[in-house]
Amino acid sequence: MEAQVKRFAAVVLEGKVAAALRAAGASEASLAAATRAMMHASMLGVDSHGVRLTEHYCNMLAGGRLNKDPQLVVEQRGSGSAMVHGDDGLGHYAAYRAVEVGIALAREAGVGAVGIDHSSHLGAAGAYALAGAEQGFVTFATTNTDSMVTLFDGAARFHGTNPLAFAAPVPDSQPWLLDMATSSIPMNRVLLHRSLGLELPEGVAADHQGLPTSDPELANMLLPLGGADYGYKGAGLAGVATLFSALLTGTTLDSDFIPMYGGDDRSTPRNMGHFVLVVDPDKFVGREIFGMMITRYLANLRAAAVRPGGERVMAPGDQEWAILAQRQAEGVPADPDTARFLGL
Amino acid sequence: MEAQVKRFAAVVLEGKVAAALRAAGASEASLAAATRAMMHASMLGVDSHGVRLTEHYCNMLAGGRLNKDPQLVVEQRGSGSAMVHGDDGLGHYAAYRAVEVGIALAREAGVGAVGIDHSSHLGAAGAYALAGAEQGFVTFATTNTDSMVTLFDGAARFHGTNPLAFAAPVPDSQPWLLDMATSSIPMNRVLLHRSLGLELPEGVAADHQGLPTSDPELANMLLPLGGADYGYKGAGLAGVATLFSALLTGTTLDSDFIPMYGGDDRSTPRNMGHFVLVVDPDKFVGREIFGMMITRYLANLRAAAVRPGGERVMAPGDQEWAILAQRQAEGVPADPDTARFLGL
Repeated sequence: MEAQVKRFAAVVLEGKVAAALRAAGASEASLAAATRAMMHASMLGVDSHGVRLTEHYCNMLAGGRLNKDPQLVVEQRGSGSAMVHGDDGLGHYAAYRAVEVGIALAREAGVGAVGIDHSSHLGAAGAYALAGAEQGFVTFATTNTDSMVTLFDGAARFHGTNPLAFAAPVPDSQPWLLDMATSSIPMNRVLLHRSLGLELPEGVAADHQGLPTSDPELANMLLPLGGADYGYKGAGLAGVATLFSALLTGTTLDSDFIPMYGGDDRSTPRNMGHFVLVVDPDKFVGREIFGMMITRYLANLRAAAVRPGGERVMAPGDQEWAILAQRQAEGVPADPDTARFLGL
Repeated sequence: MEAQVKRFAAVVLEGKVAAALRAAGASEASLAAATRAMMHASMLGVDSHGVRLTEHYCNMLAGGRLNKDPQLVVEQRGSGSAMVHGDDGLGHYAAYRAVEVGIALAREAGVGAVGIDHSSHLGAAGAYALAGAEQGFVTFATTNTDSMVTLFDGAARFHGTNPLAFAAPVPDSQPWLLDMATSSIPMNRVLLHRSLGLELPEGVAADHQGLPTSDPELANMLLPLGGADYGYKGAGLAGVATLFSALLTGTTLDSDFIPMYGGDDRSTPRNMGHFVLVVDPDKFVGREIFGMMITRYLANLRAAAVRPGGERVMAPGDQEWAILAQRQAEGVPADPDTARFLGL
């Protein structure tokens, strides 16, 4: 499969993605946000949330599910809290705006908590955690998503792969960046293993009865992080994403979403919610000492003893920064369908 | 072992715990908080953090590590942020105070973020998340702890079992309560399996080289949640606890703590940090709709299809509330050493 995947210069890819969204009618502000978030994902190796989604978003703009010219409304609720109403546009637009609102709140209040409603798919949640960290703030971003993951001892899809993304600024370095699904693997990993005829690892997927299986043909739903024995933890964390993203914002529960893919309906907005939390280190120990502490913490972590067979111990984000450097040098991969759609 | 464990009425146990702390010289305010937190843990089945810790805290009060009469100082840093300085007293005292401070901030700002420094062991982090939820607020509490868990691909103890605790109010019901270590199991589970000669589950512990083992005699450190394949997620989450608890507050890193147990030093304060975040639903979708949504979410969850061999699908906290009801009816267990120490 790898042989069919061509690489393109980031600037070229970015221009093509923006052009496609523009051709589909998206406003400049909303397409800039969506392009930025997709390029974040494609540059850092999160290809499932990268430029391959361009075609999907174009289809949903055409169908009317996504508002081509969303007018975001920011409603401050307290000195540290706000809601961003996404007006059913591209979710990236509302989510990046929420980060900016959160930063402005945090500068004064020390913390900014921002709920987002009437939004849509936002791509990789880590894009928004990173956006806050790049400006010097500890940032948390989360969203709930379409049901795909069973509960502990469950036999049906309940939560989405609901990501929790955290990032923190590190002086003279890329941020600390954790962007994790609360399942062990994403559903498209199952599809990939199916197409390659490869077994799945233990404890990551279940059959239609909810019983763990490593046969990708039988896999019907994902298991939460922690697998067959400790999946109540992963299921609980998926619930945290739903709690903040949907319950606090009054938006759609995971199991109530109109399917992102595959359904006939391309016209009804999905009223997806997200949540962003921004913390200003200056209101706690102070930016300078925080910087010294996280530097020392990461130096200790990266110097930690490695187990036999391991290569090195990495901090959250280290793998992503390595991929970024490689893709900046060698180009960004795009699968054949996406390259064709983008006219590459 | 169970045969040696006697049960006592909660009110009796609570009185004995308080009396022991009082005899060790703790101030009324700080011993009330520690007693409340230990009773929380013992009533909800978190016995590792329950009344068995009374003797340890008494020893540390006697040795001088713990300040018998701590004077908490609350320093507001922004309209939504504060630090609570624990004055090296019992950690429960500072942590419960932080919840109260967080609630007061959240009522105005919509969110309250409170760091705690110069604290000590706080027992079960869930006690503080619950305290916020019981007053109607979505609450997050975390702490870092002594190194016990290896990194992904690591061969040494690095993070503590660093808990993440979340709780949310549910109308006419016990709160939703997730109190989870970021390892799969606690270290005392290893010791228990060792004493019983029982194998450990796969992927929860490692030998001195960092290689996964199910032999409790060989287990030298814990693996992060996610085990051998996905432990980078658990390790990242342990880092979240350290980020908020230690790096933002300028307190002690997991690997720098004077050991809680076993060292000779009972006199040097440990400068432990914690973090509490309180969110007011009234500043987001509003308490009424939030209550309807979480009620519906939990009803869906508890009605979810069960896999063959499973009994029922539970929400975070359901098991704890069942244990609470049982212990209210049948008494609270205390191991023989603890019963003896408490004069029961």
